[in-house]
Amino acid sequence: MPRMSVTGIPQDGGAPVRAGVPEHGRVPKYYAVRILLTELVDGLGEGEALPTEREMTERFGAARETVRQALRDLLLEGRLRRRGRGTVVAGPKLEQPLSLASYTEGVRRQGLDPGRTLVDLRSWPCPGPLAEELGLVEGEPIWHMERVLWADDERVGLESTYIAVERVPRLDVDFDPDSSFYAYLDERVGTAFADADERLETVLATPREALLIGTPPALPMLLIHRLSRDARGRPLERVRSLYRGDRFSFTTRLTGTDGTTG
Amino acid sequence: MPRMSVTGIPQDGGAPVRAGVPEHGRVPKYYAVRILLTELVDGLGEGEALPTEREMTERFGAARETVRQALRDLLLEGRLRRRGRGTVVAGPKLEQPLSLASYTEGVRRQGLDPGRTLVDLRSWPCPGPLAEELGLVEGEPIWHMERVLWADDERVGLESTYIAVERVPRLDVDFDPDSSFYAYLDERVGTAFADADERLETVLATPREALLIGTPPALPMLLIHRLSRDARGRPLERVRSLYRGDRFSFTTRLTGTDGTTG
Repeated sequence: MPRMSVTGIPQDGGAPVRAGVPEHGRVPKYYAVRILLTELVDGLGEGEALPTEREMTERFGAARETVRQALRDLLLEGRLRRRGRGTVVAGPKLEQPLSLASYTEGVRRQGLDPGRTLVDLRSWPCPGPLAEELGLVEGEPIWHMERVLWADDERVGLESTYIAVERVPRLDVDFDPDSSFYAYLDERVGTAFADADERLETVLATPREALLIGTPPALPMLLIHRLSRDARGRPLERVRSLYRGDRFSFTTRLTGTDGTTG
Repeated sequence: MPRMSVTGIPQDGGAPVRAGVPEHGRVPKYYAVRILLTELVDGLGEGEALPTEREMTERFGAARETVRQALRDLLLEGRLRRRGRGTVVAGPKLEQPLSLASYTEGVRRQGLDPGRTLVDLRSWPCPGPLAEELGLVEGEPIWHMERVLWADDERVGLESTYIAVERVPRLDVDFDPDSSFYAYLDERVGTAFADADERLETVLATPREALLIGTPPALPMLLIHRLSRDARGRPLERVRSLYRGDRFSFTTRLTGTDGTTG
């Protein structure tokens, strides 16, 4: 059954994909089990539990370690998730728009409750390369604010914001870390974003990141680097946002005959 | 030394990142070696070779398997690459703009030579979910064109295009697979793209994909789903583009006070 999607495009029901078997027909043993496991998962609904490892070992005629490797793949890809001691079929990945809107708005639009918990908020002297990006003087005080991002009761990401103390001198006093930083900037400081450059890549979670977000280490993550500017074109903040690759996808609408967005 | 970038933003010289060590100070043994290895890599330039595994085993005081696991991480992330029997420091990831422009244009803009080799081109009856997306009748003939994407002499991706045969009936006759499909559409058929929806996620390469692209299996990949429409708003093609996560990143410029692109 195709997984539903908030944009109406089925997440895996559309363009068919070959089963992953090379033309020569040979696959690693664990991958043959993975194909059987995928068929099993396709026949279950969201939240339904998988049989025990022992049962799957018998059903697939495979060693326990082989079954575990196949399970690990589908967990990393977000088709399955752990629930207590069992494994259940995961829902579709979240679809976060690539936009100037905040994390908060994007998550709300999907009917989930956004949350943030503060890991670190302190000012320190801006190192050289970051000063160059932000148009600051090396050593000038900047804030580093690091927050874990939540969607409902699940940790889904980790966000580091770097902004000159001069821009928001009272950040440590009058900002509620469990609220939208962009709403704060807008309402309290009157600083509006005009545009931002983003670069998106996939990386592996470090042990620290995995611990903070509660994921297995080495889970593929989506990492977004953002440099945003104010209405006068001055660099405003540098953000490093790390999202669970098994729970997030990003959407964008492309327009324009010049082939660029915006 | 920070890795350079075509946008001028250093790929890892900007926002500083904590070393990946959790606050409690404990890391898996292989990760401690990974940190030492990263420091070693940071001191070398692009294309420089790493010492042998034996030498690193001695230098880091670690078992050979531990050194290999740390190497594997940095290979998956694209900091290192194999060259012959050795391992060298990789260049920066390619930065492909998220835009209506083709793969061809994006790669050329980075000073590399784009290439494509045909894996499969055939027409077949359109399955239900894909027909719904493309506004076609189930069973109506569509093309499936699958191509390996190259940048210079390196395989970097795998692209599957689905388009109704009615739109481009002579695709198998007058299209050179090692050329831009968008240029073909534009010049020969006069069909212009107006806009497209994209969704970007990270997945693991299947054995077939890994073989076609020449990557290790289970390498994290960036997968882009595209549904493009013509000037009259009719769905035109569905594309599934898979890019090596260790070689590609995607960039976008966000503008507009409404917080959306385009």
